[in-house]
Amino acid sequence: METIRVELGERAYPIYIGNDILDDASLYARHLVTGRAAIVTNAVVAPLYLDRVRRALSASGAQTIDIVVEDGEQAKDWGTLDLVFDALLSARCDRQTVIVALGGGVIGDLAGFAAAVYQRGVPFIQVPTTLLAQVDSSVGGKTAINHPRGKNMIGAFHQPLAVISDVATLDTLPDRELRAGLAEVIKHGLALDARFTEWLETNIGRLLARDPEALTHAVRCSCELKAQIVAADERESGRRALLNFGHTFGHAIETGLGYGTWLHGEAVAAGMVMAAELSARSGAIGEAEVRRVRELIARAGLPAAGPSLAPDRYLELMAVDKKAAQGRIRFVVLEAIGHSALRADLDERHVREAIVASTGSSVAPH
Amino acid sequence: METIRVELGERAYPIYIGNDILDDASLYARHLVTGRAAIVTNAVVAPLYLDRVRRALSASGAQTIDIVVEDGEQAKDWGTLDLVFDALLSARCDRQTVIVALGGGVIGDLAGFAAAVYQRGVPFIQVPTTLLAQVDSSVGGKTAINHPRGKNMIGAFHQPLAVISDVATLDTLPDRELRAGLAEVIKHGLALDARFTEWLETNIGRLLARDPEALTHAVRCSCELKAQIVAADERESGRRALLNFGHTFGHAIETGLGYGTWLHGEAVAAGMVMAAELSARSGAIGEAEVRRVRELIARAGLPAAGPSLAPDRYLELMAVDKKAAQGRIRFVVLEAIGHSALRADLDERHVREAIVASTGSSVAPH
Repeated sequence: METIRVELGERAYPIYIGNDILDDASLYARHLVTGRAAIVTNAVVAPLYLDRVRRALSASGAQTIDIVVEDGEQAKDWGTLDLVFDALLSARCDRQTVIVALGGGVIGDLAGFAAAVYQRGVPFIQVPTTLLAQVDSSVGGKTAINHPRGKNMIGAFHQPLAVISDVATLDTLPDRELRAGLAEVIKHGLALDARFTEWLETNIGRLLARDPEALTHAVRCSCELKAQIVAADERESGRRALLNFGHTFGHAIETGLGYGTWLHGEAVAAGMVMAAELSARSGAIGEAEVRRVRELIARAGLPAAGPSLAPDRYLELMAVDKKAAQGRIRFVVLEAIGHSALRADLDERHVREAIVASTGSSVAPH
Repeated sequence: METIRVELGERAYPIYIGNDILDDASLYARHLVTGRAAIVTNAVVAPLYLDRVRRALSASGAQTIDIVVEDGEQAKDWGTLDLVFDALLSARCDRQTVIVALGGGVIGDLAGFAAAVYQRGVPFIQVPTTLLAQVDSSVGGKTAINHPRGKNMIGAFHQPLAVISDVATLDTLPDRELRAGLAEVIKHGLALDARFTEWLETNIGRLLARDPEALTHAVRCSCELKAQIVAADERESGRRALLNFGHTFGHAIETGLGYGTWLHGEAVAAGMVMAAELSARSGAIGEAEVRRVRELIARAGLPAAGPSLAPDRYLELMAVDKKAAQGRIRFVVLEAIGHSALRADLDERHVREAIVASTGSSVAPH
């Protein structure tokens, strides 16, 4: 098992990463404030892991309650959140109750936000069971629910007491979701770390084969890279923007096709190729680097080109992106493999050329 | 105008207190991050003060939107909060939009919570227009909405950028609400400051006559006393418990009679007399001090005795109070006028005697 620490002063917390650590009672025991825990999970994850987590919590001396919500993005809404509050209140859970979020990103966001605002904030432990949640939402403390008028519009920054990332839970993940999680892993390498990118180029096959040792290493490096940025920049500005590499184009793809047509990771994968093309057109990197980006993404089984929407449509979709400041679209560009920068001064002509050069995917991922 | 500062590190903020300062544009101007403000108020306050606040914000360079919700405690619910989110989202308010909470405690709690979670947190300015809100909710950063299963169950700690307390707005406050606000002012004196208590004993008549200079002084001293405690103890433990003087009995009164029968301040007023009786029975103070407490509260036009519920009923109601720890009811007792302490070791017999000695109010306040 590996342990890394997210350094956030009095809100610092450890991430435990390893194979088959889900029911290690000692990991829970060191973080339980009192003997009370509420496990929030969904109907898909519950049959797989709820018993084991409940037993581990009991073994560490906690009384537990289960709160099982529906699976899927639509559960990230007020109605489901209110079911969580109802369950907490009817079990008379007090301010020392620890909420345990067992599941993927939706559960982490929903249960984390419940913990952020239940009785003005209770502690929580994240037990992410998807690769995306292990490498992305486990670091940064972002929690939220959706509003009919926008995704993640209602939320809070609320750091967990600890994250327990068991790579063995990734065995039950569908291939497509594993690959979508790898997109964020690759993003951390390309935007932030040349050596980790090389490691990914060598080991992408082991990751796709779900080799526990390789997965542990990938999750650990991803979390470390993200944790370094978050520690320096908890509330999101400056360097934290680099984590959006591939996301400006990616969000345009998601919105343009309708949310859910491509998975977030798939859109980010294509978005990274588009951002690499843009970086090359702007003179920041050469064609060889673009090729490396494209190849790594293709080898991960991810779309290495965006869907064929018109450049005008891409520009329109990106202009309403949250990252648009003073009317200019801001992009994270590569300055080398493993180095990136936020730029708001790019030539629109280069953006159009990059779109033309890196779209045309006619087949949706599956 | 007086300015005090709530010292909370990077979340420190000023409270401006004065007569007719509601439309001083310079007070708003120094806290507007960008030129965008959303004023949240209710249907009773809007006709009185909305125009003036809107003009002040415009004069300080802000584009404003108005969000007017219903008056009353029932507006502190998810439905009303969602109306606020809807209005913010349809006006495309971004993360730099400042929310201005114009009204009493309900508006402060509701708009403050909206600010705490809209897009994971936006800044807010409080413009409290009741005495209770000026002396109580303006310090401490507590925000919340109610849940059908409990008051203030969903909320957050979210400090404002600034508080603008205009004592002239208290002119439109009904007498009963003014007196209920005075209960919290008296609480700050009795629990924390002997000199301020003496000042109150001398000036209670001026406060009831709404003398602006006296009100400014009372609001300022109250905020200072509370701010000192909150600065040392932002997240509520230890010394912050002293602010609950009178509240253990007070909550029992509110719950026992049904919320809203007595105003919160009225219940706290009677609760303070009961707590003073209990302090005397436990030997912490003498009968003379109890008399001073009772007289000050009576002179403020507040109930100086609790309603006649049976001692068993009081004990039962207090046992479920949030402050009950390990089965023992904790009380804030007076050790002298202006000095208090949290005690969990009191003799139940003394509690019963204190209840008998300080209840019997057969007339509800009005």
